Amino acid sequence: NTSFNQKQHPHRRYNPLLDEWILVSPQRANRPWQGQTEEKTEESLPAHDENCYLCPGNVRVNGERNPEYKGVYVFNNDFGSLMKEEVDASVESSGFFTLQPERGINRVICFSDNHSLTLPEMEPDAIKNVVEVWQRQYEELGSLDYINHVQIFENKGQMMGCSNPHPHGQIWAQSSIPSIISKTQENLKKYFEKNGTSLLEDYVKKELEAGERIILENEDFVAVVPFWAVWPYETMIVSKRKIENILHFSEAGKVSLASMIKDLTTKYDNLFEISFPYSAGIHQSPTDGKPHPEWHFHMHFYPPLLRNAEVKKFMVGYEMLAEPQRDITPEQSAGVLKSLPVVHYKSK
Amino acid sequence: NTSFNQKQHPHRRYNPLLDEWILVSPQRANRPWQGQTEEKTEESLPAHDENCYLCPGNVRVNGERNPEYKGVYVFNNDFGSLMKEEVDASVESSGFFTLQPERGINRVICFSDNHSLTLPEMEPDAIKNVVEVWQRQYEELGSLDYINHVQIFENKGQMMGCSNPHPHGQIWAQSSIPSIISKTQENLKKYFEKNGTSLLEDYVKKELEAGERIILENEDFVAVVPFWAVWPYETMIVSKRKIENILHFSEAGKVSLASMIKDLTTKYDNLFEISFPYSAGIHQSPTDGKPHPEWHFHMHFYPPLLRNAEVKKFMVGYEMLAEPQRDITPEQSAGVLKSLPVVHYKSK
Ligand SMILES: O=P(O)(O)O[C@H]1O[C@H](CO)[C@@H](O)[C@H](O)[C@H]1O
Ligand SMILES: O=P(O)(O)O[C@H]1O[C@H](CO)[C@@H](O)[C@H](O)[C@H]1O
Repeated sequence: NTSFNQKQHPHRRYNPLLDEWILVSPQRANRPWQGQTEEKTEESLPAHDENCYLCPGNVRVNGERNPEYKGVYVFNNDFGSLMKEEVDASVESSGFFTLQPERGINRVICFSDNHSLTLPEMEPDAIKNVVEVWQRQYEELGSLDYINHVQIFENKGQMMGCSNPHPHGQIWAQSSIPSIISKTQENLKKYFEKNGTSLLEDYVKKELEAGERIILENEDFVAVVPFWAVWPYETMIVSKRKIENILHFSEAGKVSLASMIKDLTTKYDNLFEISFPYSAGIHQSPTDGKPHPEWHFHMHFYPPLLRNAEVKKFMVGYEMLAEPQRDITPEQSAGVLKSLPVVHYKSK
Repeated sequence: NTSFNQKQHPHRRYNPLLDEWILVSPQRANRPWQGQTEEKTEESLPAHDENCYLCPGNVRVNGERNPEYKGVYVFNNDFGSLMKEEVDASVESSGFFTLQPERGINRVICFSDNHSLTLPEMEPDAIKNVVEVWQRQYEELGSLDYINHVQIFENKGQMMGCSNPHPHGQIWAQSSIPSIISKTQENLKKYFEKNGTSLLEDYVKKELEAGERIILENEDFVAVVPFWAVWPYETMIVSKRKIENILHFSEAGKVSLASMIKDLTTKYDNLFEISFPYSAGIHQSPTDGKPHPEWHFHMHFYPPLLRNAEVKKFMVGYEMLAEPQRDITPEQSAGVLKSLPVVHYKSK
């Protein structure tokens, strides 16, 4: 028998956060691609666009006018997926037809008044302001008695369903703990109860020892391509020490996080010299008022691109029905991301 | 308090096959869309395309020539995600870096020698031939000692990562039971052990009583928009009686399945009068040699489109990080699909 080589042979890897496996096919990286390609749009944008409903002073679809804000600006989503009105919860719901009313609040966060910027092009201080708004939102929304989970995220780029290039993210705050969070929590908890330590703290230590998947490191955080990454250039920013949620960051911690976000997203932009699309979001303790010693703050980045600015990885048939699958190995992707500069290609 | 109305108020629904919840936001259906749109390509294709690597008699990328086949034709995928060679399984793998070598076979199934057809446009007999090839493939691959699961699926349309319009599907057969299958199996098993009946048989009975989500019904199968459907027009073909896998279908059962596939995919094409993209695939008992009284044959259809031929549902930020979310309700989608004719718009 040939002896197994993880750079050459198909294998499965285990994701302890979700208790799931993924299929890795390193030998498949150089198959030819004749399928759909994405448009490479690299227009340069104005600092203020009169047709943008997120720019300061402009009117939104529902008729409201944005204030002449500077920096970060938060408002309630005009077309939210949740409603904050309380509804009578006594619902016919049983057996195969089980449902429950869900209450919540959707907000939009403009990261900057400048229409033409994105996180990697913003100053570290301006990103730190975003982090502070995330803190305040998590605190404010989380303190409402009917909000038990606050999901902070960003969809960046048309490819990720984002309809407006103005730099912005979202918050969906709700009564229930969403499926993926509750699965993650279960696995963090099992580990914590068994070992008395944080799964992610122990994981980061092992990754720092191994070295090969670490992209960036500073005093408080690492950015790593997880051993079990699904998307070609998926990464995770993790705090080195167990921190349950964003409220526990010190002044220095916030500076560290902002600089880590800037450097990681700059590397992303530099990869194909485009504004790199992704969905990113924070996983942290729910706001359900219960103790959560198992939780450990981390931020996932799920970018869709595979080979170049035009060819993305399709998570389709096999992946939707059976199991996530990837071609290039996490170690290859980490090697590429590691070697890229933290100076943005546009500023060169 | 307003009383809860599932046609108007956000709610979560429970999926018993995956033991997961999804978020339904009926009030969000008519938000304006300014984001990415898909190309609507409706060229008419020739019956034989000399540049197509799936057409009879043509040469594939690896230099092999397809035979002058008629009807269905199966071959090993030239760029498979799996390899059938045995590798030495003693691998360094532990703790956070857990992996296992994976062995398997990838095949491509051309549904027809005619480049211009798709399943809804094929004759019922020709679709029955496809069903019989699925049977033989499941049997042949499943009988190999190192194959414990056979995933039969189709990616249709560029939007679903399909690079060639020639009608074809795939089979990925492998040693392990993939994550989503093993989760489904666990839930089917729990139900079977508790109730002594099949979860899906009982579910179909309830859906037939309720009526509103059933799209099609014949002697042996129903096509239903599951109560817990994630994709806007997601459906599932389920056998009315518990049948563990495709080998147990009688002659009449195969005819029923073929006609159900034809009618359902015809309705899909009629929805926006385009060749409707989707990923579809069969869930059935693994081929691991163990008894599987809990398994119940079903076929999932996951189509990406939402409003029209150009606007798809983006499963991005919130959905990737927290929980699947949908806008129109499964009942609305079922109503639309139900009302569509089973005569293909092109044949009118
Ligand atoms: O094998 P294909 O059709 O080239 O590839 C397509 O289907 C596969 C199985 O769902 C996916 O892994 C690929 O991302 C997709 O592009
Ligand atoms: O709210 P948006 O940005 O318009 O919508 C986008 O993000 C949402 C949250 O991930 C998704 O549900 C939508 O499908 C997507 O288009």
